[in-house]
Amino acid sequence: MERMQISKVFTLMESGPVVLVTTNDGKKNNIMTISWTMVIDFTPKFAITTGSWNYSFFALYKSKECVISIPTVDLLDKVVGVGTCSGADTDKFEKFGLTPVKGQHVGSPLIKECLANIECKVIDFIEKYNIVVLEGLAGYIDNSRKEKRTIHAIGNGTFIVDGRKLNRREMMFSKLPNGI
Amino acid sequence: MERMQISKVFTLMESGPVVLVTTNDGKKNNIMTISWTMVIDFTPKFAITTGSWNYSFFALYKSKECVISIPTVDLLDKVVGVGTCSGADTDKFEKFGLTPVKGQHVGSPLIKECLANIECKVIDFIEKYNIVVLEGLAGYIDNSRKEKRTIHAIGNGTFIVDGRKLNRREMMFSKLPNGI
Repeated sequence: MERMQISKVFTLMESGPVVLVTTNDGKKNNIMTISWTMVIDFTPKFAITTGSWNYSFFALYKSKECVISIPTVDLLDKVVGVGTCSGADTDKFEKFGLTPVKGQHVGSPLIKECLANIECKVIDFIEKYNIVVLEGLAGYIDNSRKEKRTIHAIGNGTFIVDGRKLNRREMMFSKLPNGI
Repeated sequence: MERMQISKVFTLMESGPVVLVTTNDGKKNNIMTISWTMVIDFTPKFAITTGSWNYSFFALYKSKECVISIPTVDLLDKVVGVGTCSGADTDKFEKFGLTPVKGQHVGSPLIKECLANIECKVIDFIEKYNIVVLEGLAGYIDNSRKEKRTIHAIGNGTFIVDGRKLNRREMMFSKLPNGI
């Protein structure tokens, strides 16, 4: 995985892919599947919606760290599997054959099999709406990976796979952050 | 456009499409293009990130209402156009040939040409992070429309079009809200 410029990390999230969020509670690693996410700043900052209904939330709350890992369509069944069992009684890395990789900034692991990983620290909990505010510390992308199509949850058990890409850079030139 | 069950409206937004947000400041309609959005509750509630850098923000702040309109790929150039000019000096409905349609709950217009529209009231401003919290009041979908593929912004001036759909309803049965 290659390190990305931090100013470009928001581009991993802006399109709204389903993500895996890893945590470590001081004893063990865990993973949850999340599709309620939003970029809130280019620096980058992200909002995710989660709460005590997710076992991972306690580790997130305690450690104030996580990694956002971005899976691709070849990993869809693992992503759904991770989202439909609990870290309370399951080692999800083992069960789904995912490989934790030590990061440089946080105790939560990167996931080797994912297209991209973002090490994050929690900078705020907006408890009224179960919104967790994250700041990305470092981003990594596996450019050697052939499959780069991410997946988007509809919320009814079906998923949209990335289709073709369309370029409107010229039209948008005035609105793009410097260097993006 | 057909009315949707309110419990299903979150499924329009969960996959992270680029949306148009319409407002009315009491005098005129306006539209902005937004890709920083997140579902935060099934009821439905949405978070969007916007602020005083968008001219529409003042109408949103004043009226506490908006409509989220969901465009499809055939509208991409209008979507980018809407996002790269300002309502301060432009009637965007006129300039981009979009048709405002009167809603039932709010003074902001639906957009006839879009795949779906969600009438929303603003229930909170989280000023520290420029997050606006919306509650969806009614959702509408144009099922007669042939083009249903939405678009996802990468943030660098390129866009991903919806590709194929994959069904994992059976695997996810335990996690789907009632009736979804």
